[in-house]
Amino acid sequence: MFFASDNSGPVPQAILDTLAEANQGYTLGYGADAMMDEVRQRLRDLFEAPDAAVYLVATGTAANSLALASLVKPFDAIFCAPVAHIEEDECNAPEFYTGGAKLTLTKGADRMTKADLEAAILTQGNRGVHGPRRAAVSITQVTEMGNVYSLEDLRVLCETAHAYDLPVHLDGARFANAIAALDCSPAEMTWKLGVDVAVFGGTKNGLMGVEAVIFFDSDQAQEFEHRRKRGGHLFSKHRYLSAQMAGYLRDDLWLDLARRANAKAARLHRGIAQNPDVRIVNDVTANMIFFTAPRALHDHLQSNGAVYYTSGEEPARGRLVCDWSIADEEIDRFIDLLKAA
Amino acid sequence: MFFASDNSGPVPQAILDTLAEANQGYTLGYGADAMMDEVRQRLRDLFEAPDAAVYLVATGTAANSLALASLVKPFDAIFCAPVAHIEEDECNAPEFYTGGAKLTLTKGADRMTKADLEAAILTQGNRGVHGPRRAAVSITQVTEMGNVYSLEDLRVLCETAHAYDLPVHLDGARFANAIAALDCSPAEMTWKLGVDVAVFGGTKNGLMGVEAVIFFDSDQAQEFEHRRKRGGHLFSKHRYLSAQMAGYLRDDLWLDLARRANAKAARLHRGIAQNPDVRIVNDVTANMIFFTAPRALHDHLQSNGAVYYTSGEEPARGRLVCDWSIADEEIDRFIDLLKAA
Amino acid sequence: MFFASDNSGPVPQAILDTLAEANQGYTLGYGADAMMDEVRQRLRDLFEAPDAAVYLVATGTAANSLALASLVKPFDAIFCAPVAHIEEDECNAPEFYTGGAKLTLTKGADRMTKADLEAAILTQGNRGVHGPRRAAVSITQVTEMGNVYSLEDLRVLCETAHAYDLPVHLDGARFANAIAALDCSPAEMTWKLGVDVAVFGGTKNGLMGVEAVIFFDSDQAQEFEHRRKRGGHLFSKHRYLSAQMAGYLRDDLWLDLARRANAKAARLHRGIAQNPDVRIVNDVTANMIFFTAPRALHDHLQSNGAVYYTSGEEPARGRLVCDWSIADEEIDRFIDLLKAA
Amino acid sequence: MFFASDNSGPVPQAILDTLAEANQGYTLGYGADAMMDEVRQRLRDLFEAPDAAVYLVATGTAANSLALASLVKPFDAIFCAPVAHIEEDECNAPEFYTGGAKLTLTKGADRMTKADLEAAILTQGNRGVHGPRRAAVSITQVTEMGNVYSLEDLRVLCETAHAYDLPVHLDGARFANAIAALDCSPAEMTWKLGVDVAVFGGTKNGLMGVEAVIFFDSDQAQEFEHRRKRGGHLFSKHRYLSAQMAGYLRDDLWLDLARRANAKAARLHRGIAQNPDVRIVNDVTANMIFFTAPRALHDHLQSNGAVYYTSGEEPARGRLVCDWSIADEEIDRFIDLLKAA
Repeated sequence: MFFASDNSGPVPQAILDTLAEANQGYTLGYGADAMMDEVRQRLRDLFEAPDAAVYLVATGTAANSLALASLVKPFDAIFCAPVAHIEEDECNAPEFYTGGAKLTLTKGADRMTKADLEAAILTQGNRGVHGPRRAAVSITQVTEMGNVYSLEDLRVLCETAHAYDLPVHLDGARFANAIAALDCSPAEMTWKLGVDVAVFGGTKNGLMGVEAVIFFDSDQAQEFEHRRKRGGHLFSKHRYLSAQMAGYLRDDLWLDLARRANAKAARLHRGIAQNPDVRIVNDVTANMIFFTAPRALHDHLQSNGAVYYTSGEEPARGRLVCDWSIADEEIDRFIDLLKAA
Repeated sequence: MFFASDNSGPVPQAILDTLAEANQGYTLGYGADAMMDEVRQRLRDLFEAPDAAVYLVATGTAANSLALASLVKPFDAIFCAPVAHIEEDECNAPEFYTGGAKLTLTKGADRMTKADLEAAILTQGNRGVHGPRRAAVSITQVTEMGNVYSLEDLRVLCETAHAYDLPVHLDGARFANAIAALDCSPAEMTWKLGVDVAVFGGTKNGLMGVEAVIFFDSDQAQEFEHRRKRGGHLFSKHRYLSAQMAGYLRDDLWLDLARRANAKAARLHRGIAQNPDVRIVNDVTANMIFFTAPRALHDHLQSNGAVYYTSGEEPARGRLVCDWSIADEEIDRFIDLLKAA
Repeated sequence: MFFASDNSGPVPQAILDTLAEANQGYTLGYGADAMMDEVRQRLRDLFEAPDAAVYLVATGTAANSLALASLVKPFDAIFCAPVAHIEEDECNAPEFYTGGAKLTLTKGADRMTKADLEAAILTQGNRGVHGPRRAAVSITQVTEMGNVYSLEDLRVLCETAHAYDLPVHLDGARFANAIAALDCSPAEMTWKLGVDVAVFGGTKNGLMGVEAVIFFDSDQAQEFEHRRKRGGHLFSKHRYLSAQMAGYLRDDLWLDLARRANAKAARLHRGIAQNPDVRIVNDVTANMIFFTAPRALHDHLQSNGAVYYTSGEEPARGRLVCDWSIADEEIDRFIDLLKAA
Repeated sequence: MFFASDNSGPVPQAILDTLAEANQGYTLGYGADAMMDEVRQRLRDLFEAPDAAVYLVATGTAANSLALASLVKPFDAIFCAPVAHIEEDECNAPEFYTGGAKLTLTKGADRMTKADLEAAILTQGNRGVHGPRRAAVSITQVTEMGNVYSLEDLRVLCETAHAYDLPVHLDGARFANAIAALDCSPAEMTWKLGVDVAVFGGTKNGLMGVEAVIFFDSDQAQEFEHRRKRGGHLFSKHRYLSAQMAGYLRDDLWLDLARRANAKAARLHRGIAQNPDVRIVNDVTANMIFFTAPRALHDHLQSNGAVYYTSGEEPARGRLVCDWSIADEEIDRFIDLLKAA
């Protein structure tokens, strides 16, 4: 009953197979491999963006930080939600890669609203050379609290950002789960709404460690390659990143895996939502469930084999994340364990 | 006839097998996987350093830059050879990770001498708060020009560095090739001579992309984990780095691969050294051959299928690098092609 | 009727005289001037801290940023109030000098409380290598909103910081005004309460541009000199900084100027507090008054010669800052103008 | 007999007078003072550059670093001579302000030649994303070794830089001394030759601490103001920088002071050049003399009251710098002392 994270499961056999396929003979390094050509083309097709600039890196922190560093200057401010991964879980990597830009947090906890964003922008914008210059907005989809912005939500946020000439970065560590939840196309969730740079995550959805960074206006990407190299994120044997992403894109594996993970979460949700001791605190449409329950109940579940994170006091909050690979039997065991408690 | 680089060949089947072995069930991320325990123990045993701090990252640039950043401050100087990878081929990554430390280049081209090092140290040390503080020495073994420092060479350099209280970083992108060339133990080539931090490279010797950073005094490593995370180099699915390194260490695969690569270079060396148009310019004991030849000869070889880098004017310099995987037949074809020219 | 800022008035004649006194013959640069010896001794005596490390820089932003950079690492967090000068008015200088450390804002607007500080510390401390490491607390005295922490307030904040092993930085741009308001000694407001590094500001209290940075534990200062030079803040003709500070310290000029400024603000306060259209929103014990009033009233005052900043909507907030040099007549004109409105 | 540096003498009375003149009443801070308007206009007139962007900072290190940071990116290389102040005497400030750009040193010691510059450029330019991108050339006039580039020398260097699309920064800490030596106009020594950004130094020529940074194409300066603030180099009481520079520009004081200093050096030069134990090693046209002499002779001079720096072994090198304020009597005493030795 492993619900700790979607970064803890195995990768599908198809990915191992594509790695083996790539593991033939000699190829030039640093992204000049033939499989990267396939990946580039597939991503441009998938996003309906024939001119997009497309790059691969191995971690989400690198993807986000490098993308943001391409958008802002060291004396700038980036607007994001207080629970954003870039703020809470990247150990100042965005500050590192941007040369010291400031993350300015919107009020409110998880889903940023137009009002929150506009308030933050207006506050930051009044101090001329004394304060940081406002420069970019970062939105996380699926959010860290397991919520999914509607397309309309995103459209309004992008519109607000652009009204102040701020480009929009989309942290898509769970991009595929959001697409599966919204049943829309990647283009509909990104550039058609105004997203300027998107991270198309693979690591949390079945890859060993690959994220694509996609600039819809390739002019904004011109320094990305230098920044990636300078950060130590350009792989000499790049083909093994390409191979993972190629396997992910072929036959819509990325979407299958996300649908599977979301379906697992829905099954789990159905099984626990009626429990009187449990209160679900997010909208479960992707692959994460946040719920509060008495600490004693968490203890009971965890001591009987359920693995997940909890935080806070009474009632404590639990986070259940469904990896694409979790078996229905494990989910049902959890449900039964809860019912029996 | 692919001699362009040792970062361009396939990985051995054993590595794919270990990846498949690691690809089972759930495991905690970020280095808390069981296979990392195996790796840590194996590296400590191999280096006869039971207290060493051991970390994995995916690229050599990250390994070098993070190791150096643990040793120096932003207002410091690092001494290295002018052709060092950290100077020439990492796009200012050392400056980035150290916060702006300066690489101070020794005179001379490839193998640093005690006199060169001491001259550089003395020059840099005379300006108090005005100049950078001298802080570390970086040595590359095998050198970028394909030479191998003797143990005595290294001992003298370490002694010189320590005489000025400077710790020593060893860039070991081709660490295994040097061990194979010198027929010594990893301990004999590192801490027994005074090396403080070594990069034990895997990527250029058969892995997809893994380097171990080994601090012999674990106190010097205390901030490495934060710096690695901040650089975006901590893998959530760390097991796939662990697995590669585990496969590399089991049954001395690392040494077998290096011996194989070195033997290939020796075969190639024997076959071309007598050619009157060719002048070998390095001591070929590891897996690289640098030679000069008329530009027309290079053109002939390259247009007939030999892949390698050349530089400079007449005579132009060629670099032949033997990957562990290069077939004897390819080597012999190259030799024959040269003879026939 | 100039109440825009205490950085906009002239310097006392005594400072010009000390500059002229310093302007004799030759002296070594970079802080090796004899007047710096006097300054160092006077500051150590004034702070009853015979071993303190004492440095001069020309701007408050440099003083704060360099002091913080001596306390924290790039992957760390600094706790401060949301209106802190280091957060709002230094254009990411603290992030620049610390190499990208994060400013983590406490809740609440101006005077930080123990509860706010502890909540921020606890939140930031839970994420191991993923989040920034908590590293320092920065307190501003006088606050940006014109309030003065009591000694007991400061003691509790320092105690809270130290309970988590966090050193305390005191931004004392208006240090002298706080001393004058509290009628205590510099030692009583700093190290006796637990302050580790204090900025003893001169620029806002009558100097052309000099701030002293005082480390009570000189071990924490060991890199300050390199950082100051690296930041371009080491003056070659340092004697002209020393001279200003010497003139400021002789005959308690610093305290006289601050008492004068505070007395001006008290006079202004008495004159406007009873006005029915005006609401004073800070505790006026130092040299700043924040008040709300109808926008039309502000317009009337400003169009009749009162110079001060306003912000916000109806009622709008005004900020009146009394420089040491403002004439009583100007204050009375403002009071009369307000009464007549 | 103080010849240690031109940063160790007093400032002319005219500067104290202008400070006193500026010290009247209230004025807005941060460069919005009226005297800055005068300075801006005077500098534009002096440089025959009506659209130039003009800024003041207090130190040469800040001026150089901020100017370079406006020209290059963190993954870039700046070409300079090995003895350049930015390389040797700024404690990694250029690396700090540029975010880690690399200083690539030309061969040769002092005056950069076209061949040296071109060789460095070509070497740095061959590695694509692996090496730093070449981005700017920095030239020091007067050089650190007391030589003065001819206008033709400078023209050729600028032409070479521009042939590779590299902008040119002129470190003019002793700008005025060079103008006096060459008897040309500031425009003739800068933009008419191709200089893009010049530092017009005041500190080494009689000011307390002010340097002007002049961008001839104001587009290149657009981020300077943010960078200056972020570096803590924007003075709130900016009028005291403006006043110094205004006093310096009025009645050509800057040129008078430089002519005086150069004349002092010429007098000293004439007096010592014939001494058989002395060998002058630079072209003495500005205000510095470098000479070699037996160590015993240096000891004799220094123990009899001559203050200057020496370095190296037998014969040791001495540096004599003439401040504008040095008295002829002091020079003659030095000459006599040498003759008597």
